[in-house]
Amino acid sequence: MCGIFGIDGRDDAANHVYLGLYALQHRGQESTGIVAWDGERMRIERGMGHVADVFPASALARLSGSRSIGHTRYSTAGSSVVENAQPILVKTSMGALAIVHNGNLTNGLTLRRRLEEEGSIFQTTSDTEVILHLMARAPRTDVVESLTTALAAIEGAYSLLLIAEGFLAAARDPHGFRPLAMAELDGGVCFASESCAFDLLGARAVRELEPGEVVVVRDGRVESHRLARAGTPRRCVFEHVYFARPDSVVFGDSVAETRRRLGERLAREAPAPADMVVPVPDSGLYAALGYARESGLPFELGMTRNHYVGRTFIEPKQSIRNFGVKVKLNPVQEIIRGRRVVLIDDSIVRGTTSRKIVRMVREAGAAEVHLRISSPPTAWPCYYGIDTPRRAELIAARKSLEEIRAFVDADSLAYLSVEGLLSCLGGVRSSYCAACWTGDYPVSIAGEDRRQRELFPAVSDEPG
Amino acid sequence: MCGIFGIDGRDDAANHVYLGLYALQHRGQESTGIVAWDGERMRIERGMGHVADVFPASALARLSGSRSIGHTRYSTAGSSVVENAQPILVKTSMGALAIVHNGNLTNGLTLRRRLEEEGSIFQTTSDTEVILHLMARAPRTDVVESLTTALAAIEGAYSLLLIAEGFLAAARDPHGFRPLAMAELDGGVCFASESCAFDLLGARAVRELEPGEVVVVRDGRVESHRLARAGTPRRCVFEHVYFARPDSVVFGDSVAETRRRLGERLAREAPAPADMVVPVPDSGLYAALGYARESGLPFELGMTRNHYVGRTFIEPKQSIRNFGVKVKLNPVQEIIRGRRVVLIDDSIVRGTTSRKIVRMVREAGAAEVHLRISSPPTAWPCYYGIDTPRRAELIAARKSLEEIRAFVDADSLAYLSVEGLLSCLGGVRSSYCAACWTGDYPVSIAGEDRRQRELFPAVSDEPG
Amino acid sequence: MCGIFGIDGRDDAANHVYLGLYALQHRGQESTGIVAWDGERMRIERGMGHVADVFPASALARLSGSRSIGHTRYSTAGSSVVENAQPILVKTSMGALAIVHNGNLTNGLTLRRRLEEEGSIFQTTSDTEVILHLMARAPRTDVVESLTTALAAIEGAYSLLLIAEGFLAAARDPHGFRPLAMAELDGGVCFASESCAFDLLGARAVRELEPGEVVVVRDGRVESHRLARAGTPRRCVFEHVYFARPDSVVFGDSVAETRRRLGERLAREAPAPADMVVPVPDSGLYAALGYARESGLPFELGMTRNHYVGRTFIEPKQSIRNFGVKVKLNPVQEIIRGRRVVLIDDSIVRGTTSRKIVRMVREAGAAEVHLRISSPPTAWPCYYGIDTPRRAELIAARKSLEEIRAFVDADSLAYLSVEGLLSCLGGVRSSYCAACWTGDYPVSIAGEDRRQRELFPAVSDEPG
Amino acid sequence: MCGIFGIDGRDDAANHVYLGLYALQHRGQESTGIVAWDGERMRIERGMGHVADVFPASALARLSGSRSIGHTRYSTAGSSVVENAQPILVKTSMGALAIVHNGNLTNGLTLRRRLEEEGSIFQTTSDTEVILHLMARAPRTDVVESLTTALAAIEGAYSLLLIAEGFLAAARDPHGFRPLAMAELDGGVCFASESCAFDLLGARAVRELEPGEVVVVRDGRVESHRLARAGTPRRCVFEHVYFARPDSVVFGDSVAETRRRLGERLAREAPAPADMVVPVPDSGLYAALGYARESGLPFELGMTRNHYVGRTFIEPKQSIRNFGVKVKLNPVQEIIRGRRVVLIDDSIVRGTTSRKIVRMVREAGAAEVHLRISSPPTAWPCYYGIDTPRRAELIAARKSLEEIRAFVDADSLAYLSVEGLLSCLGGVRSSYCAACWTGDYPVSIAGEDRRQRELFPAVSDEPG
Repeated sequence: MCGIFGIDGRDDAANHVYLGLYALQHRGQESTGIVAWDGERMRIERGMGHVADVFPASALARLSGSRSIGHTRYSTAGSSVVENAQPILVKTSMGALAIVHNGNLTNGLTLRRRLEEEGSIFQTTSDTEVILHLMARAPRTDVVESLTTALAAIEGAYSLLLIAEGFLAAARDPHGFRPLAMAELDGGVCFASESCAFDLLGARAVRELEPGEVVVVRDGRVESHRLARAGTPRRCVFEHVYFARPDSVVFGDSVAETRRRLGERLAREAPAPADMVVPVPDSGLYAALGYARESGLPFELGMTRNHYVGRTFIEPKQSIRNFGVKVKLNPVQEIIRGRRVVLIDDSIVRGTTSRKIVRMVREAGAAEVHLRISSPPTAWPCYYGIDTPRRAELIAARKSLEEIRAFVDADSLAYLSVEGLLSCLGGVRSSYCAACWTGDYPVSIAGEDRRQRELFPAVSDEPG
Repeated sequence: MCGIFGIDGRDDAANHVYLGLYALQHRGQESTGIVAWDGERMRIERGMGHVADVFPASALARLSGSRSIGHTRYSTAGSSVVENAQPILVKTSMGALAIVHNGNLTNGLTLRRRLEEEGSIFQTTSDTEVILHLMARAPRTDVVESLTTALAAIEGAYSLLLIAEGFLAAARDPHGFRPLAMAELDGGVCFASESCAFDLLGARAVRELEPGEVVVVRDGRVESHRLARAGTPRRCVFEHVYFARPDSVVFGDSVAETRRRLGERLAREAPAPADMVVPVPDSGLYAALGYARESGLPFELGMTRNHYVGRTFIEPKQSIRNFGVKVKLNPVQEIIRGRRVVLIDDSIVRGTTSRKIVRMVREAGAAEVHLRISSPPTAWPCYYGIDTPRRAELIAARKSLEEIRAFVDADSLAYLSVEGLLSCLGGVRSSYCAACWTGDYPVSIAGEDRRQRELFPAVSDEPG
Repeated sequence: MCGIFGIDGRDDAANHVYLGLYALQHRGQESTGIVAWDGERMRIERGMGHVADVFPASALARLSGSRSIGHTRYSTAGSSVVENAQPILVKTSMGALAIVHNGNLTNGLTLRRRLEEEGSIFQTTSDTEVILHLMARAPRTDVVESLTTALAAIEGAYSLLLIAEGFLAAARDPHGFRPLAMAELDGGVCFASESCAFDLLGARAVRELEPGEVVVVRDGRVESHRLARAGTPRRCVFEHVYFARPDSVVFGDSVAETRRRLGERLAREAPAPADMVVPVPDSGLYAALGYARESGLPFELGMTRNHYVGRTFIEPKQSIRNFGVKVKLNPVQEIIRGRRVVLIDDSIVRGTTSRKIVRMVREAGAAEVHLRISSPPTAWPCYYGIDTPRRAELIAARKSLEEIRAFVDADSLAYLSVEGLLSCLGGVRSSYCAACWTGDYPVSIAGEDRRQRELFPAVSDEPG
Repeated sequence: MCGIFGIDGRDDAANHVYLGLYALQHRGQESTGIVAWDGERMRIERGMGHVADVFPASALARLSGSRSIGHTRYSTAGSSVVENAQPILVKTSMGALAIVHNGNLTNGLTLRRRLEEEGSIFQTTSDTEVILHLMARAPRTDVVESLTTALAAIEGAYSLLLIAEGFLAAARDPHGFRPLAMAELDGGVCFASESCAFDLLGARAVRELEPGEVVVVRDGRVESHRLARAGTPRRCVFEHVYFARPDSVVFGDSVAETRRRLGERLAREAPAPADMVVPVPDSGLYAALGYARESGLPFELGMTRNHYVGRTFIEPKQSIRNFGVKVKLNPVQEIIRGRRVVLIDDSIVRGTTSRKIVRMVREAGAAEVHLRISSPPTAWPCYYGIDTPRRAELIAARKSLEEIRAFVDADSLAYLSVEGLLSCLGGVRSSYCAACWTGDYPVSIAGEDRRQRELFPAVSDEPG
């Protein structure tokens, strides 16, 4: 879960990337970085934290040139160090190369071990660096060919951007797990994880990359290459459910509209005897609108969110009830008191946050709390870039629906069905990856990678 | 427009203040500070920026003790320096004193000139320091008496908190322009600009201070004093319209409910031939809900807000259309395209932001844009703490309704009437200050202060 | 023990002050600050640490204008905070005033208490601020007169520089404890604690200020005023013994030459049966040269000093023998081994450092160590600005010569006599203050100030 | 010109390294770094600047473990970035490896190009990294063998320390250009560029490494290995002339005593008709003592050095005569005025600094200035780690003795002869490298490296 943005053919390219990353900040706030090529040198700026903090004007001024890529990274456990911030910039006999990557390789560690055995030295613990080493070792023909040779060896989910001294390349894995779109901006070509980044810059969206496509922008011309390895599309539904910004178009569908359809379908699948529909802000907003419309119940903003929330909170010695959630969310008692509430959220991961929210709503005086989730139970970990915890920590992997309801202390609980969810999406149903709900993984995970996964699963803040 | 919070009688007092300020962050993000008294020393930490950035754990650890006050400050022109960040902490013959202040004195500069003539030396350019100098020069009896003597000399708007070595005092000016409420937290007494700060801490709201009341917390007991100078209540309506958080109760009314009533009234006063109601997030959310309900039009979240917005934006050399607004707001084209939109916002100050928003909505494909404002035209500057620009810059002071409509490029424009606005508030209508709409000022401004105001008006980002 | 520098009449005045402070860095490295007046505003930059760290080019660029003063401050206990860094800059009804001060007032606290009773509010815990408050309360005639009125009330040691909007003033107390000299630089007039600062700038030294003289530079003209209060000169001998830089001329004498004479006299008063003379670098260098020349013994650089020593040292858990001294000094074993050494230093304060040095020289193989001190036993604390510890900590106040010798573990020990020391100085002997050796204080200390001194004596690193 | 220090077998190893680097700070102040191994992980801390600034207590605390190495780096042009600060730490299939290196490879670039062609990716532009890549590609047997295999491929000057998960290794190139010594400290074994670092820690010097020796400390045992490639010793004389600290023993000789002998020999080779001998501090101190003793002229400290000199100086707009030198050095006029001075310095590089010093001494009133240099004319660049400029910038490569004298404006000028210099050193004369004076290079430089050298010579501050 990261955001990437790149542009070629505009002066001040890094400044455009900076704004693009700004629009993609919701995809990761742990670290960020930009590389720019000015025709002579690649320069890099990276740092921990938000885009606005990492790049003062002086940093952007150093990043001159008309070709640039950037990255904003989600926090995952065990690697919160600036060395792992992307882009990764290296010097090779092909000249300088820089890369950013959104996704997760399923054979990254296996490849890394093999490369290390052959004498490669890695700078980071990131999968992404494997791609550069594969390129450096590819039989030398030209740099684009080195890239496609390297991509032929890797498996899993990736949408990536790479800049070399002669071009900018964008690539999407054969299954197309993660989104990546292309736009045009007065003679420049840009790429972004989500279309909202184009809107900010006033760029005109052209199209999404095809799964398995490599687009190269060289001397102002756009070429399209195809990876030899074929794959059936497996777009990540979670982008629509939770991760993307509502004002983005992802996999061809409006996220806001998709979420509203999920809410409408949820209202049909799981009605509730209540007085009002209240979203958990901001994740449940559009689904709640859909639920309210379909059910005829009034839509109420019964909970507010504090948008000035920063990195760390220092709790007083005397513990505050439901502290973690309260810092972000506060119910509006005058709206909720004495009423039966349908609470809409997008997902339940470990269940602890949902439990705190339900309790907070009860303490604000709600007569009843009916929790409705606009996606199916998350019961399987994701190997393709969504930072879910290991299976044992997923509440839906261990407990029945009734047990979960009891745990989160709701009067009733319902999830959307997989069938229902898929019916709300455009295109062919089989073109989506629903592994986190079904356990049906489109790409298996290599041996060394699997072992590592089991030893050190990602442990992160519960996203919902 | 600032937020203040104080507490006495809890270990770890500064940590509570820190959280209280967190909840009040929307009242000012320019600078912040906390003072704590540990029985022996007063310690201060101040800095530019957000609460979470200014107070790392190490700073809070230094601020030990069970009595503490803090402040979060709105940006006003010409004084963005840490020296002007509150609290102000001084050493006097009465011992150490620290003060925080929300509001604006109308005779501050006049008093300051007089005190300087008599040999007082000021540390800051802030009005607030005048109060401390008046206390230091008051005939010595006890410190509380020094405070009431000092308050007797000042005019204008103030809600303030002061800690001395022996007590915590909270005071509200005789007109009660700015809010200030009291709560209880397991043996501690706390004070805040808004009740949302109590919610975060789990404190139990007790009551608002009366206009002209001074509450002193000493050795765990709460005493109430009255200022000799009487005044009729003149609560600032803008707190409800724009400034307070929707989950707060201010002047006895729920802000969220008040805003919804404003929207309902607006729908009755100024209906529009449209397909949907869209709020400008987040300021127009509740009024839009009210407007939608009353008008029967569907409520749509047709515009999203980027909540990761930081301090400064570096625009590329090639200018981006509507740049300033786009960084914060983005329309959802799939919702808006081809539809007639009622756009709800809380106010128009200079008109430039509204114009950009309307244009952005048009560019997203809206068929018509009908702008509705949930307050009357802002035509007069505020002398009591709301940071409005000088009169010449207020668009409603110079232009007719039709001229404003043309300027902001809306298909139609309507404001709520003063009468309509006051009818939505609890209590007696005459107990509110509506000077920014009517020009009818409850307290006049002293000579030196007026001259200064005219020379150096506050120039700030347009709030709405 | 601080360094001050000021200049009027040169563009880029603060840059000159910065370089002047650089040359005076040996007089204090704890904090530093500069104020400059550009004809419209006084601007200040202050910080903890060395001049080169506190003033980057950007800071100097902000300090524009042709009148400027600066200060570099020695570390004294209990007040190592940037708030106490000088200059002190205040706004008064006479306009902005900034002051720097080298010395110590003997009635500072007494005056402060009186001013606080009358309602003055202090920003710092520094004596220096008293002078500004006295000025602010002086009957208003003109600013220079306010200054002389204020100086008439204070007692003790001060060499100070003050800038107002109309002039730069330099003043020396009636006893002239601390040095202050004036120089000319291409149309500008400058003032410094020591002449070495003039050398760096290429300024031409004009003269020292007289005790009790106030020099005012106004519109390019230099006026001299006299304080009414008369006093006999009492120049601090310690400036020559230890504090000033050897390349300075202080009180009319070359410091290097004076120190050499002290060494020569010491050789006559206290010869030693040794093979070589070794200075403790850098404090004993010139006295050792004098001792060697007079005694006919060879001068050897048998000990080196690490000049990259910074603020704090982190010692490993396993303690290192003589750690503190070793970080700074290291004997050259090949020079010392098997030889009888006369070790020359300028003073002994607590004795612990001398003891470590003697031991280190022994461990390097010296056959005998004869310690010779180029000043008399320091047995009384200084109230005039040298940061000596309280009497009980001065080894010479508690122990006999033989006891000190035994404590520092030298084969023999001798100090220079008071008579001998004074005979090495130019001018009338009675014109010097020798209170730290004789206990004969020229100015007594006021009641409140004495109490405070006894409670909180300065506790500092032993200077020698 | 760098300093390296390492230790194995002591808790708190990094703290020892920190102190060792402190003592070696004169060998480089641009950047510094430490790596420590705690039995599980290697941790690194690096930064620009002085040891005391880069390693606060918190940084040292993170560097736990009993095996550690560190580096302090001299400023060379074009690479002043923290990425090039050593140690270099990498992860390989042999586990983590960290290395520090003092010297310069003559085939570094050639090897790097070859490795890059084979697919290696470099992190830095430093030669040192080549060694790690060679190790990573060596046929896998054990790590020590990988090291000796790698060292067999490199040419030039290196004294290096390497830590692996199982041992600490120290190695010196077959010619032994740069010093490296071993000491013992209560069960720990340590290595340093110079013995002064052992003195600070109280470690007992054991011996220097032999040229071509690799010492491995493993499980508390010390093993000695020999590189296959033989070489005749070629110790760098410049270490004695200029670079090492006087209190160090280098190549078996005391630096202080060697410098004194150089001064004595210089007095015999080049006497001067003068009244006194004055060293340029600190570089000329010991040679001046020798010259004075041999010539019978008095030794005078006629010039002082400001030891608080920081990185950058901001000169005022009005230029100061001899600015650069004056910031560091100031003559003592009372000593110099009217006298004929023999000025002793260790070397002349470009001549511009010497010229400023001579002029400054003249302006201080010297009747005559006779410049004597305690080494031969520096006419050839160094390829083995001393940062000399390219040949065209070396004044002695372009001008005759008389032309140099005229340029530096001395009354007379003389250098020490090569013959005279070598006669002052212990051991066999042919065991030294004197290439910078003779052009007789013991190791030739590889093709790619030579080209690079000629394009981008080191451009640095003139050291003498």
